[in-house]
Amino acid sequence: MFQLPTYTDVAAAAERIKGRVHRTAVVTSRIVDEEIGAKVFFKCECLQRTGAFKFRGAFNALSKLDERQRRNGVVAFSSGNHAQAIALSSFVLGIPATLVMPHDAPAAKLAATEAYGGKVILYDRYTEDREAIGRALAEEHGLTLIPSYDHPDVIAGQGTAAMELFEEVGDLDALFVPLGGGGLLAGSALSAAALAPNCKVYGVEPEAGNDGQQSLEAGSIVHIDTPKTIADGAQTQHLGAYTFEIIRRHVESIHTATDAQLIACMRFFATRMKMVVEPTGCLGFAALRDMRSKLQGKRVGVLVSGGNVDVERYCALLTA
Amino acid sequence: MFQLPTYTDVAAAAERIKGRVHRTAVVTSRIVDEEIGAKVFFKCECLQRTGAFKFRGAFNALSKLDERQRRNGVVAFSSGNHAQAIALSSFVLGIPATLVMPHDAPAAKLAATEAYGGKVILYDRYTEDREAIGRALAEEHGLTLIPSYDHPDVIAGQGTAAMELFEEVGDLDALFVPLGGGGLLAGSALSAAALAPNCKVYGVEPEAGNDGQQSLEAGSIVHIDTPKTIADGAQTQHLGAYTFEIIRRHVESIHTATDAQLIACMRFFATRMKMVVEPTGCLGFAALRDMRSKLQGKRVGVLVSGGNVDVERYCALLTA
Repeated sequence: MFQLPTYTDVAAAAERIKGRVHRTAVVTSRIVDEEIGAKVFFKCECLQRTGAFKFRGAFNALSKLDERQRRNGVVAFSSGNHAQAIALSSFVLGIPATLVMPHDAPAAKLAATEAYGGKVILYDRYTEDREAIGRALAEEHGLTLIPSYDHPDVIAGQGTAAMELFEEVGDLDALFVPLGGGGLLAGSALSAAALAPNCKVYGVEPEAGNDGQQSLEAGSIVHIDTPKTIADGAQTQHLGAYTFEIIRRHVESIHTATDAQLIACMRFFATRMKMVVEPTGCLGFAALRDMRSKLQGKRVGVLVSGGNVDVERYCALLTA
Repeated sequence: MFQLPTYTDVAAAAERIKGRVHRTAVVTSRIVDEEIGAKVFFKCECLQRTGAFKFRGAFNALSKLDERQRRNGVVAFSSGNHAQAIALSSFVLGIPATLVMPHDAPAAKLAATEAYGGKVILYDRYTEDREAIGRALAEEHGLTLIPSYDHPDVIAGQGTAAMELFEEVGDLDALFVPLGGGGLLAGSALSAAALAPNCKVYGVEPEAGNDGQQSLEAGSIVHIDTPKTIADGAQTQHLGAYTFEIIRRHVESIHTATDAQLIACMRFFATRMKMVVEPTGCLGFAALRDMRSKLQGKRVGVLVSGGNVDVERYCALLTA
C-alpha cells in the first residue's frame, strides 16, 4: 500500500516528538544578508540532538512501532547521521538497535553511534549493498527495518524542521534544502506546501552525484554509482519511491554544489557564524550563494542539516 | 560620581538593545548532563552579533551618547571582541569609531573590526599601555572613550545575557561566567541577584592570570602583568572599580582554568555541540567540569562568551 505522507503527518510527528527533539535555533547574519542581498534565515539542525535533523524522522518512526516490534528491535543502514539518530532514539525508547554503516564513515559518527548503545556492523560502500545486508538482518532476526529516508514516518519527522522554521519566521520566498535520499527535502516540501504555498523549495545535491536532478528531468528515479564527494551524508545512489513522488510534485528545482563550494561555506560558517557544519550541511547555503542574483530583496530559508564531521578531517578541509 | 549599576539598568539596557542584539540560543546536551551529573544550560553568546557578548554592552553604551558625542565619535581599546562590538555598534548608529587593538590580536578579530568600518590603531600589549593610548586619542580628538568593561552602561548591557537565560530556563542553582575585566561577570551577577537570588554565581579566569581571585582574597583590586594564556579575551591586568565592587558583593567565588582544560572544552564544543567557541568562551564550562562533584542533580547555567578565533589557530589547538 503506497500512500504518500501529507502535512497532517508532519503535524502529528511534531506532536509526537515534542520535548524529545530540540527546537533548534534559527540564526541570521547581517554579513550573509549583505552578501546575498536577501534576508536569510538558517535553521540550524547541526544543533539538533545527535548533530543532525535525522533524529526527527528516526524518533518519529520508532515512536510508532508496536510492542512486538519494539521488543524484537530495529535495524538501519546509514552513512552515519541516520545511524546515530536510530541509536539514540532506540536508546531513549528502550529498543535494541543494529546499525549497518560504511567502513569509511567518519570516526566521530561511528563512535557516537556505539556510544548511544547501537550495535554497529560495517560494510564497504563501494562494493557491498547495504540494503541487502540490512534486509537480510531484518529477516533473520525479526528486526524492523527503518529506512534512512524512504518511509512515510521518516519523511513526516524530517518535515518538522521546516515546519518550525515557518512557525518562527513566517512566510518565505524560497527554501534551500540539502538532498541525499530526499527525506529532508520531501518533508520540507510538505511543510512549505501547507504553511507557505508561495515558497519555492529547492533541493541541493553534490555535483558529483546529481541523480536527483537527473530523476526530475527523466520523470523517473535514476540510479547512479556511489558518488565521490566530501558530502558524505548525500552519497546516495537514488531517491526513494516516496521521496521522489513528493519532490516531483512540490519541489521547484534541484541544484548542485561542488566540494570546493562546500568547503568555502564550511569556512564561512566557522568564522562568521561560529557553527561547525558538515559538508552535506553546507549544500543549501552553497546553492543560495550561486543563485543570489535571482533572490534580491527576498526572504530565504536555508536548512543546515548537520554538523557531524571528524575534527581532524574538518580542520584538514578548513585549512587546505 | 561613582554609582554602581543595578538590575534596573540591566532591564533598561534590555529594552534599549531589543531587536538590535540577537536573543541567543540556550542549548542543552544529554551527553553534558550525563558527564556533569547536572542539568546544564549553555547560553551561546558565540552566536551573538560580532561573535561575542560584547555587542550587548557596546550597543547599550553607544545608544546612550548625546548628539555631540555621537558627532565627535568614540574610541575604545580592546583585545578584540570589544573592538568589534564598538565597530559594529558605531556603524549601525552612524558614529565614527577608533579602535586601539593589540598587534597580536587574532587576525579574524582585526579583519572583522575593519570590515565593520572601524579605524584600527595597533599597539604592543606586552610593552605599551593601551589605556594611555586610548585616553590620549580621546583628549586630542574630543572622542568619547568607551571602556571595555569598567563602565555602568557596559556592565548593564552585558547583564542582559544572563537575564535572557533566567527568563528562558527559570531558576538555576549555579551560573558559571568567564572573567577578564569583569563586565560580563558583574552584569550577570546583577541579573542573578534580581532574578534568581539563590543562584550562586562563579567567575572563571585563566590560571595564568588569576588577578580576580587574588583581588577577592585581598579585598582590593590586584594588578598583574599581562598573563600569557590562549584565552586572549581574558588577558586583562586588573578588574575595574565598578566590576570589582559588584563582583565582591554578588559573586560566590572565582575559579581558574588551564589552557589544556580550555582546549579540551573547545574540542568538546566542536565535536559534540557543533559550536566554534574561542578559548575564553570555554572558561565557564572548564570550571564546571572541575567542580561537578559539588553540583550533582543541580540546574546549572554556563555563559559561553564568544567564538572569535582564527580558523588556523583554532585548528592548530584542536588537532595538537
